[in-house]
Amino acid sequence: MIDVDKIRADTPGVEHSMHLLACGSALMPQSVVDAVTAYTLLEAQIGGYEAQAKQSDLLDKVYRSVAAHIGASPREIALMENATVAWCHAFYALPLKPGSRILTCEAEYAANYVAFLQRAKRDDLQIDIIPSDESGALDLAALESAMEEDVGVVAITWIPTNGGLVNPAAEVGRIAKAHGVPYLLDACQAAGQMRIDVEELGCDFLSATGRKYLRGPRGTGFLYVKDKWLDTLEPAMIDHFGAPWVARDRYELRDDARRFETWENSYALRAGLGAAIDYADQIGIDQIQDRVTLLADEARRALSEVSSVEVQDLGQAPCGIVSFSIDGHDAGLIVKKMAEAGYAIGASSPSSTRIDAERRNLPTLLRIAPHYYNTESEVRGAIERLASLIR
Amino acid sequence: MIDVDKIRADTPGVEHSMHLLACGSALMPQSVVDAVTAYTLLEAQIGGYEAQAKQSDLLDKVYRSVAAHIGASPREIALMENATVAWCHAFYALPLKPGSRILTCEAEYAANYVAFLQRAKRDDLQIDIIPSDESGALDLAALESAMEEDVGVVAITWIPTNGGLVNPAAEVGRIAKAHGVPYLLDACQAAGQMRIDVEELGCDFLSATGRKYLRGPRGTGFLYVKDKWLDTLEPAMIDHFGAPWVARDRYELRDDARRFETWENSYALRAGLGAAIDYADQIGIDQIQDRVTLLADEARRALSEVSSVEVQDLGQAPCGIVSFSIDGHDAGLIVKKMAEAGYAIGASSPSSTRIDAERRNLPTLLRIAPHYYNTESEVRGAIERLASLIR
Repeated sequence: MIDVDKIRADTPGVEHSMHLLACGSALMPQSVVDAVTAYTLLEAQIGGYEAQAKQSDLLDKVYRSVAAHIGASPREIALMENATVAWCHAFYALPLKPGSRILTCEAEYAANYVAFLQRAKRDDLQIDIIPSDESGALDLAALESAMEEDVGVVAITWIPTNGGLVNPAAEVGRIAKAHGVPYLLDACQAAGQMRIDVEELGCDFLSATGRKYLRGPRGTGFLYVKDKWLDTLEPAMIDHFGAPWVARDRYELRDDARRFETWENSYALRAGLGAAIDYADQIGIDQIQDRVTLLADEARRALSEVSSVEVQDLGQAPCGIVSFSIDGHDAGLIVKKMAEAGYAIGASSPSSTRIDAERRNLPTLLRIAPHYYNTESEVRGAIERLASLIR
Repeated sequence: MIDVDKIRADTPGVEHSMHLLACGSALMPQSVVDAVTAYTLLEAQIGGYEAQAKQSDLLDKVYRSVAAHIGASPREIALMENATVAWCHAFYALPLKPGSRILTCEAEYAANYVAFLQRAKRDDLQIDIIPSDESGALDLAALESAMEEDVGVVAITWIPTNGGLVNPAAEVGRIAKAHGVPYLLDACQAAGQMRIDVEELGCDFLSATGRKYLRGPRGTGFLYVKDKWLDTLEPAMIDHFGAPWVARDRYELRDDARRFETWENSYALRAGLGAAIDYADQIGIDQIQDRVTLLADEARRALSEVSSVEVQDLGQAPCGIVSFSIDGHDAGLIVKKMAEAGYAIGASSPSSTRIDAERRNLPTLLRIAPHYYNTESEVRGAIERLASLIR
């Protein structure tokens, strides 16, 4: 059982805000704030390079923390500026022959989809969207039958930015593996919300952010690159950190996933990311998932009782992101009024998940995404407030 | 005249370190530390997205500060993770026909050179190194005569990472412009050390970092993209921030330089970068350059009197980076012993500037790079200490 009182005491934000938007950017625990500010102060005192040298153990440990958190080895981890940059570095590095197909899901995120469109145009690729099953999740039978020739990559979002869905990421991994096709998994909304085990998922690449359910600082993320790719995969862009200049006409790629990094980074933010992951692991990711699910289910139940509200979530076991629409009300205005009442909730426009939004004819959705530091009464209070706003 | 006492009172690091490595990562003023930590605390209190909305004016102002600092318009500025990522985004976006030539200088930085090598291989390009004149600077007559057909880009480093050189960046700009060739200028070591005026420089693209002479946080940088490129230039990688997903099969690039950015960023670090630029502008960049030059010249004079030390700087008017070798002494060990004595200085290996290092047969160089917050006695004290170490 999670000690909610202890956790709230560790979370300065609970005094200032009823924050129900972990799927946006969650409240950092004090240990993360302390890690970032202490590191920044050290840099101010002795200089940036000198602080890096002094804190090299702490900074190395971040790779081990990330790796342990997802069942990888540290050499398979690159620390990145954000999840999108991490994802892009994997996607744009993949050698895809002209005519080959990108298989993705209906709820794929906008960031990834525009990259598909760019490479499709540039490299003459085809984007194939695997339909969803009755529950709204990626249809595994449809994926299996799409795995004919010319599949260049399977690239899906595990948990879409809205819609409550959890795609069957591990089952997708088994199918991709059986066909020898690279599998790129966007775990942006999963990291910190549920257990990630790259072996079980069977993914070749996985990208994630620090700022959402992991409660890390903004401007942090990471990329997992399965060991077997480290012999061959060349980043789309390089500098002399990832690819040291070893002779006048030659560079040599690093032999680990850090070939995707560049020389310069914010080490203060990395310290914060490490603290965030350590904090989550101390609580236990399964306990976290249980509580997030409990609170989200409570939100769905309460919302379902409010007239003119429609919960828009998909999947057999929805995750912590609760999505809904309100007939006759502008989502942006609702977010604003809820903020005035002290509740941070969010909106997600059709352009975030255009394929799914067109298919389901969705308006801009509202999102409530409790984290384990929220209380049941915050969740219920938010929905009561919402109900009174639209009454 | 610069009020050194006032500036040192604003700089917590001067109490802890005699820091003479502004070309690495300089000491931040308190206002930068405050900007980063205050923003981080606000995020912890109300959440990351909510802090961004609340501080949108401050965050918008960073673009105006950067733009004003370099004589650009805010729409020509992208805020980036670091200078290399900024530079790469410009370089890898440039459409270069097979067979076209990249013109660069002998002192080009490793980060850029490995990218040249990668694109040369990938896109069948040729790298042509313009020789240096007698002073060691890029030879303008040689550049002019190299501007025959098939020049795809002129890409040079204004101030190399070592060697004290200031390349004739504006004269290069005039030549590139006269031949209608895109000009990409790496201003990483120039930003915050001397006046940058993109009109006078005549560059199409300029990249810079926050952490060096600008005294900003690590993990910050910016890219200038001349207005005329904003109609056509497509980034090598995109997400839905730079390229919104406007219809199922179409994205549309933003009409400003922010097409090179991604959706997620560290706004705390951006706040710090803005504070750093505002601090520099308050002092005045010409005053800063005068004092940096004064202190560097003093370092060169004092070093020239130490036997077995050879100053390795080039150019008719060397900049703030003082480079030297010591016969019979290991550079890394000297840096370590100086650190033990409280002086932060640095080393720069031949692989940082391989062409120049091979041409001049350079060992790993030592670097002393005073900033305007240093005192004359710190500079002299460092060199006295150095002299006693090698005696």
